[in-house]
Amino acid sequence: MLINCAAYQAGSKIADLPVEAISEYVSHPDCFVWVALKDATPEELQEMQVEFGLHELAVEDARKGHQRPKVEEYGNMLFCVLHALDMDEAGELEVGEVAIFVGANFVLSVRNRSRIGFLNVRARAEREPHLLQHGSGFVLYALMDAVVDRYFEIVHRLEGELEGIEERLFSANNSARLNIEELYALKRKLVTVSHAAVPLLEAIAHLYGGRVPGVCVGMQEYYRDVYDHLERIVKSVESVREMLAAAIQVSLAMISLDESAVSKKLAAYAALFAVPTMIAGVYGMNFEHMPELKFAYGYPVALLSMVVLDVALWWKFKRVGWL
Amino acid sequence: MLINCAAYQAGSKIADLPVEAISEYVSHPDCFVWVALKDATPEELQEMQVEFGLHELAVEDARKGHQRPKVEEYGNMLFCVLHALDMDEAGELEVGEVAIFVGANFVLSVRNRSRIGFLNVRARAEREPHLLQHGSGFVLYALMDAVVDRYFEIVHRLEGELEGIEERLFSANNSARLNIEELYALKRKLVTVSHAAVPLLEAIAHLYGGRVPGVCVGMQEYYRDVYDHLERIVKSVESVREMLAAAIQVSLAMISLDESAVSKKLAAYAALFAVPTMIAGVYGMNFEHMPELKFAYGYPVALLSMVVLDVALWWKFKRVGWL
Amino acid sequence: MLINCAAYQAGSKIADLPVEAISEYVSHPDCFVWVALKDATPEELQEMQVEFGLHELAVEDARKGHQRPKVEEYGNMLFCVLHALDMDEAGELEVGEVAIFVGANFVLSVRNRSRIGFLNVRARAEREPHLLQHGSGFVLYALMDAVVDRYFEIVHRLEGELEGIEERLFSANNSARLNIEELYALKRKLVTVSHAAVPLLEAIAHLYGGRVPGVCVGMQEYYRDVYDHLERIVKSVESVREMLAAAIQVSLAMISLDESAVSKKLAAYAALFAVPTMIAGVYGMNFEHMPELKFAYGYPVALLSMVVLDVALWWKFKRVGWL
Amino acid sequence: MLINCAAYQAGSKIADLPVEAISEYVSHPDCFVWVALKDATPEELQEMQVEFGLHELAVEDARKGHQRPKVEEYGNMLFCVLHALDMDEAGELEVGEVAIFVGANFVLSVRNRSRIGFLNVRARAEREPHLLQHGSGFVLYALMDAVVDRYFEIVHRLEGELEGIEERLFSANNSARLNIEELYALKRKLVTVSHAAVPLLEAIAHLYGGRVPGVCVGMQEYYRDVYDHLERIVKSVESVREMLAAAIQVSLAMISLDESAVSKKLAAYAALFAVPTMIAGVYGMNFEHMPELKFAYGYPVALLSMVVLDVALWWKFKRVGWL
Amino acid sequence: MLINCAAYQAGSKIADLPVEAISEYVSHPDCFVWVALKDATPEELQEMQVEFGLHELAVEDARKGHQRPKVEEYGNMLFCVLHALDMDEAGELEVGEVAIFVGANFVLSVRNRSRIGFLNVRARAEREPHLLQHGSGFVLYALMDAVVDRYFEIVHRLEGELEGIEERLFSANNSARLNIEELYALKRKLVTVSHAAVPLLEAIAHLYGGRVPGVCVGMQEYYRDVYDHLERIVKSVESVREMLAAAIQVSLAMISLDESAVSKKLAAYAALFAVPTMIAGVYGMNFEHMPELKFAYGYPVALLSMVVLDVALWWKFKRVGWL
Repeated sequence: MLINCAAYQAGSKIADLPVEAISEYVSHPDCFVWVALKDATPEELQEMQVEFGLHELAVEDARKGHQRPKVEEYGNMLFCVLHALDMDEAGELEVGEVAIFVGANFVLSVRNRSRIGFLNVRARAEREPHLLQHGSGFVLYALMDAVVDRYFEIVHRLEGELEGIEERLFSANNSARLNIEELYALKRKLVTVSHAAVPLLEAIAHLYGGRVPGVCVGMQEYYRDVYDHLERIVKSVESVREMLAAAIQVSLAMISLDESAVSKKLAAYAALFAVPTMIAGVYGMNFEHMPELKFAYGYPVALLSMVVLDVALWWKFKRVGWL
Repeated sequence: MLINCAAYQAGSKIADLPVEAISEYVSHPDCFVWVALKDATPEELQEMQVEFGLHELAVEDARKGHQRPKVEEYGNMLFCVLHALDMDEAGELEVGEVAIFVGANFVLSVRNRSRIGFLNVRARAEREPHLLQHGSGFVLYALMDAVVDRYFEIVHRLEGELEGIEERLFSANNSARLNIEELYALKRKLVTVSHAAVPLLEAIAHLYGGRVPGVCVGMQEYYRDVYDHLERIVKSVESVREMLAAAIQVSLAMISLDESAVSKKLAAYAALFAVPTMIAGVYGMNFEHMPELKFAYGYPVALLSMVVLDVALWWKFKRVGWL
Repeated sequence: MLINCAAYQAGSKIADLPVEAISEYVSHPDCFVWVALKDATPEELQEMQVEFGLHELAVEDARKGHQRPKVEEYGNMLFCVLHALDMDEAGELEVGEVAIFVGANFVLSVRNRSRIGFLNVRARAEREPHLLQHGSGFVLYALMDAVVDRYFEIVHRLEGELEGIEERLFSANNSARLNIEELYALKRKLVTVSHAAVPLLEAIAHLYGGRVPGVCVGMQEYYRDVYDHLERIVKSVESVREMLAAAIQVSLAMISLDESAVSKKLAAYAALFAVPTMIAGVYGMNFEHMPELKFAYGYPVALLSMVVLDVALWWKFKRVGWL
Repeated sequence: MLINCAAYQAGSKIADLPVEAISEYVSHPDCFVWVALKDATPEELQEMQVEFGLHELAVEDARKGHQRPKVEEYGNMLFCVLHALDMDEAGELEVGEVAIFVGANFVLSVRNRSRIGFLNVRARAEREPHLLQHGSGFVLYALMDAVVDRYFEIVHRLEGELEGIEERLFSANNSARLNIEELYALKRKLVTVSHAAVPLLEAIAHLYGGRVPGVCVGMQEYYRDVYDHLERIVKSVESVREMLAAAIQVSLAMISLDESAVSKKLAAYAALFAVPTMIAGVYGMNFEHMPELKFAYGYPVALLSMVVLDVALWWKFKRVGWL
Repeated sequence: MLINCAAYQAGSKIADLPVEAISEYVSHPDCFVWVALKDATPEELQEMQVEFGLHELAVEDARKGHQRPKVEEYGNMLFCVLHALDMDEAGELEVGEVAIFVGANFVLSVRNRSRIGFLNVRARAEREPHLLQHGSGFVLYALMDAVVDRYFEIVHRLEGELEGIEERLFSANNSARLNIEELYALKRKLVTVSHAAVPLLEAIAHLYGGRVPGVCVGMQEYYRDVYDHLERIVKSVESVREMLAAAIQVSLAMISLDESAVSKKLAAYAALFAVPTMIAGVYGMNFEHMPELKFAYGYPVALLSMVVLDVALWWKFKRVGWL
């Protein structure tokens, strides 16, 4: 579905274009065309391939989807794939995909399976003509920046999830199962974010410093900024991952500690029952000559001794922490 | 066994050849020969060695088999080994091997222990003369692409296996043994896929960018595409591997939790039996002066007290989650 | 908040400046300006941007904060971010941030969320004119050195924390929960220190050896010294981290050992109660013909046999270490 | 002990030499000398040092032994150390050492603590004059190839050991101790093989591609072949190592599962005994008014109720898998 | 404390010098000065700084101590820091520090907190004038070699410690706590040795091959030899570390196995007591009509049945390995 198609000159929009007019404007050296598609059909993609002269393999990647994030050069064009991450209400990650074709004077973005659009990117770009006049290289930066900015939000929420688990980690023992379940789910999400951010980090490293593709010339400091943001994200993910590994170990330890405590309680209570049962057993024997049985206070003394022994045991178990 | 032997010119088949005619056609600079063998005998390989002038060490590798995936240059020829992966009905991986010799105007593929052929690769190539006219470099790409495409399928099934285990991971406790067995089997398969994909990834990196072997010149974007596919596969395998490691840890935790729950149940039931037994023991004592024994309602009261205490305990154990 | 603003020439302070005078002094090639801000407002930062001609992206990083440690070149200016670490009384780490802008003849430091100032750095620099006359490159070194020196102190305290835990590790079993809690907290701190030191290490590597930014020329041996300090810190953190991982494993083993000991005690005590109970049960049977019941010493012999058996068992359990 | 000492020309043996004649033949540019020592004494080594003009440090390494595998250049000579692995009947690894000195026209191999000789290498080389005429570079290759070929055999046996353990891993629970012991022993052997293969891999990488030592010129494809074999060995070792790590985890899980099953059995059997004991206790009470005691069928009904309850419990425990 | 101060020419000692004469001899191009200090005071260091013209930062490092092993170039001087390892009688590692300043014609070694001196290094060097005439580059090599040689001894002892633990690992169960304690202590020592050896390995790599500092020219094969020794040490440490990690896992498994065995014993013994207790309970019931109670052989038959059942159980438990 075509979302937007416009031509820009000197940083300002000069016209909204019909698709057929694209190739005409693209041939103007001093203006550039910015097209946005959403969940594009193969036909739309083929149309774009013709209008912009895109490389067959790149178009195929965009059509098939499920690519890794990457930046590829086809001659003097760039083909970028980004993962657009979003979190639904239940905290599940949704992974959309954005394919961006960039030429000297055009940008084509194709957004798939993502609820989040780039209209605000376009609006902000149009408000800053001094930046937009850098042309397609700036638009690519702006789109990347918008995608990467969302990662921060996701990572902050994942850090929050870890902190939530950490708070329960040492307190309530009954939460062990829940903790482990949430830690596992968190790990899944971290892997997803890593898959979005790490390959992109490596790819963007080629857009600043040393030789850079033509469309990025003069924008190096901006791409370095995106790179820097991604590196922060990647490092944060690594930290969460490292703490998560420790948290799983801690959970295991807590389960063992809990079991250990149960074993101790079991042992203690068993002893508390075993003592009176043993005494009762003794006085339940049928020997003819058991003088205590004849004592007037035999029974209450026996009961009392049971109680006294149990209280003593109780106190001892309390003291060593078994109860 | 010879599967196919044909000569091509300008992207179209010009003749099916007898083996003896190969060397003649290979000497033509503007046509190329594409030969496919399956489970080749040493004699067939020697014949090919003579016809194509292959290097002794490469032929020995192809004869012996059990090579790692690799791309080696012998002068201006390439020798490639690929692992052809297949999954049988029981979900077991079968590893076949494909050795490919590529010269300026010939391609020789030798397929071993693999049920899957390349006839469809040849058919598709013959339908696309504009690509096939790139010659042996394109055929090598097409063969690699066909092999690598199967990896995706395998990896998707392995991801499915992991998801299947994950669903059971937190639910039914009795599945722990099965989970661990399947996780271990899955790990074995991941190692097999890694062994097929990782060395190939490293090898293909030399077929695009920088200096490339002669037969690959002009095909770089295609080889980069295979590289890119392999990288996705390798990353997916790494993710599954990482989640698998966590899943093993989770299984261990689940076993511990299950044992902990059993310990608690054991302790609780032991207490439920110990209480009436203790009371019964007390009233089984043979003291002469035990007034309760004479009471008309002594017995039902004793029974009642047993029941009441047990119900109270039961309720308490339920409340703290031991039962 | 402006802390300090002064101009220096030939290693000596020549004037305290009002902010408006900065740009004038900066244009003198033979003197340099050193400005220190604390928790700067956006307005202050904008003022500085104008006076020093700072790059927009660098200023934005300083304003937003929460950057990774880094050293970036913007033309012939350097922009550095350092993490200022501090430990409060409770042993918690506080992470402040220091942004430093360095030009050929100015240094601007912006300190955020950090209780620790650089007044002593300035004082010491002013006492060493032969070093201060190196200009802004020396000031950057001095600021970095001051920040990194604090890391040593932090790392020594973390090493102390580890040793504290280690002392308890094998002695008192009841401390397992505490040990694990503290090991986890220690891990958190190590991650924080790593995040401060590792990226800085990588960044500083570009300030000595090979091509270095203009402001650092002639100061290489000093930057290598900071690098060397950072490397020691990073290695120390790695060691603590490695020992910590082992310590967590040891804690798990200790918990298991403790549980094992409890199980043995439980088994032993159960046996000690079971023996007399069984004997008592036997002599509580109601058979008519049980000759022992008639014996004059039946009862004391039965009691004695209970005691003897229990003492024997006790001794055996002691010997095998179950009690 | 001198095993062999011969001169070769144009790929054929021309003479068996006495040690004193070596230096004479070495000075001929068109022939080369191949000497083999076994468990050489310091005197023999010194003699060789003089005859061949070997470097002091290399000779010292050969004399001392216990070197890592390596390839070192001393001027235009090469000094190689290889580990010769062998497996005795008990499956224990024996590590011998082979030091090889290679000059433009000589090869000296010194074999220590290894039962396996190189006579077959010499025999095969003498049967292939077209290869042997490459001179000392080929002999070095042939020796390396012979040593590395044995690694395959060792690795296959280690893989077999792992498979043997894997078969027991999930089946018989009682084998846990044996499994762990064998896994640990296997790990030791893997480390030994790694120590033989990994440094050699790195060293051989310098014998093909790029600048190579003079004696290896023209033999690059052969050295690449050895490299390739070593890489397969190293990767196989890595796989075994990875699966072994998982197998240790699985063993731990199996131990826990076994313990869990024992706990369940314990709990179930305890319950089966506790029920009749409790009922018997109740009817062992001495209350005067217990009507059941007077019933004609009181006793058999009590017994029956015990049996019925136990059968019901048994069935329930069977159903939930505790028995 | 000054240990030694002498001038050498052409490989032979020409004079013992007073400190004041050093600068004079250092200015001679054809002789060199070798000074050894032990636990030097700041004053001594300052004196040396003046005599040799040492760099301020290097002297500060030597004074402060607690440096990482390193080799730094200050102009055409080298500054090296080595860790001198020693093991006391209790097996604890002591870490001393050796700082070495090397110029074209001087060597100054400063030894701190180390009981081991270098007098034998000097003696051996003076016995080999043909090597000593290489000057300061040889002395640095000789000192390094002496320090590194001690590492071998340490590593052998640590390997011995590991073997000692391994022997106990699978045999006596009661040693689990001791094993874990010793494994942890061993890990600490390995970390210490790693900290001495790994940075030195990296540093020495710059003293041979490619561009080397002036004082090392012509000594490359000797420095490569030290490098090689260090690499063996590092690899040995890595092996021990790897086996140690496995040994900790094995210890955990052994603890679990031990606990499992205890659980089984507990269950078995509980059953052995429960059976007679249950039977006795049955015949302790007070039903009026219990025919067995009247039998003449009722009591012995009951006793016999208890014994028979227990023997049968005992035999069964023995057979399944629970007892």
